[in-house]
Amino acid sequence: MNDDSKRIVLGVQYDGAPWQGWQTQPHGQTVQDQLEVALHKFTGQQVSTICAGRTDTGVHALEQVVHFDIPLERDMTSWVRGVNAFLPASIAVRWATEVRSALHQEQDFHARFSAHARTYQYVLYNNPVRSPLLEGKAGWVFRPLDIDRMREAAVHLVGEHDFSTFRSVQCQAKSPVKIMHSIHIEQRGEIFMFTLHANAFLYHMVRNLIGSFVFVGSGARPPGWMKELLEGRDRKIAAPTFMPDGLYLAKIDYDPKWTLPQAAPRNFLWL
Amino acid sequence: MNDDSKRIVLGVQYDGAPWQGWQTQPHGQTVQDQLEVALHKFTGQQVSTICAGRTDTGVHALEQVVHFDIPLERDMTSWVRGVNAFLPASIAVRWATEVRSALHQEQDFHARFSAHARTYQYVLYNNPVRSPLLEGKAGWVFRPLDIDRMREAAVHLVGEHDFSTFRSVQCQAKSPVKIMHSIHIEQRGEIFMFTLHANAFLYHMVRNLIGSFVFVGSGARPPGWMKELLEGRDRKIAAPTFMPDGLYLAKIDYDPKWTLPQAAPRNFLWL
Repeated sequence: MNDDSKRIVLGVQYDGAPWQGWQTQPHGQTVQDQLEVALHKFTGQQVSTICAGRTDTGVHALEQVVHFDIPLERDMTSWVRGVNAFLPASIAVRWATEVRSALHQEQDFHARFSAHARTYQYVLYNNPVRSPLLEGKAGWVFRPLDIDRMREAAVHLVGEHDFSTFRSVQCQAKSPVKIMHSIHIEQRGEIFMFTLHANAFLYHMVRNLIGSFVFVGSGARPPGWMKELLEGRDRKIAAPTFMPDGLYLAKIDYDPKWTLPQAAPRNFLWL
Repeated sequence: MNDDSKRIVLGVQYDGAPWQGWQTQPHGQTVQDQLEVALHKFTGQQVSTICAGRTDTGVHALEQVVHFDIPLERDMTSWVRGVNAFLPASIAVRWATEVRSALHQEQDFHARFSAHARTYQYVLYNNPVRSPLLEGKAGWVFRPLDIDRMREAAVHLVGEHDFSTFRSVQCQAKSPVKIMHSIHIEQRGEIFMFTLHANAFLYHMVRNLIGSFVFVGSGARPPGWMKELLEGRDRKIAAPTFMPDGLYLAKIDYDPKWTLPQAAPRNFLWL
């Protein structure tokens, strides 16, 4: 970055339902487009943003992390309030901070490349009848799910594995090998919350995993099927990609040296 | 009702954000209009519905109760699935039941007149920055709120009172005297949940009360101000009507003799 440029980092929350994913498109109906338009209106400058995890159409973010460079002095409260004034109601900047420059660091902070790990959450609503109040915010399964079966299946996924079975064809990742640090599945009444923590995720990986968890949880497949899927390394043997509605990019992990004011926000459907 | 008619009762859940309230309007953009159109498509008959509590524009229902008469035999699962097939995603029938006829009862069941009491909930989000994921689902207050002050204020409202101060001018209720059975205020992090249980509510009464609670909770008024407001019996002395976004019609109380399959659904923002 230029000597007079500052690298600004934002924590951004959004409801993904109205948008065609994160990444910029010619039609402009993406979260990145909306954010860059708001930054342009606030600063008078063209701003190119880079995010930690490019979310897909309909996928939400509790705390997406975004950076950009700009030769402009603003206090951090102004970045939050000023940009929010130009954003639609479904997108908001939650915090802003300036990262220290390359002079003091071995390398610059980068929203994507500096990330050590990501946490995604998936919310499933399990009831014979759909819920209008969870529309777009949770996946819906009408067959009863058994949490013990799904937890048994999850054990097979933890650790370093080739996740080719859960990788959609459009995936551009160099390697299908990822490290799944943990998968937690919890239940409160009719709501199931899946929390997946990994160094990185392949394209559609969480939605493909949830589709297979639902097959196991509803009794259509045994828990050990998840191990077979993983070892088969073939997308065609797993369940279909599950709906995006319940998927939340929850948290990005960085080295504490960057001192980002991350809020680790809790999912509102799971206070 | 006719001898060959059956009185059907439905439990209906809806997201009020897209609709101009419950009550039918010539433009058709109300929950009642949408429900009656769906009933017409499912039964081939014109159906007039009566609800327990007419909610306003933007107000949600966890479980609205609705009845209508129809000379038609359908099993209860068909009523739920069949009508839902014709409803928009923001409205759903959660259960259906037939109430026993006048032959066996002193008087027929009536969604509104048989109701003994109502429970409304209000969800407040308390943070310096708005939340896109709670947009339309919670009221937003950016000044810090003190729960102890609001609980102290609430005590003054419990019992039989003239609630004229919290009654909007369009209110058509015969009497401003209502019995507030209880007001519970709870907090989890940045979310406050108000649960109000009363024999009946005046027009805009909950939103007018919440506006005044916010004045007390943020320190703009002392807790004892709520008592002054109540005794003043003048709408002009209270705080402005608060936004509808966080308001939920939660539950209607009936005599157990009607054996309605009420689910007493929990608010998804407060599992």
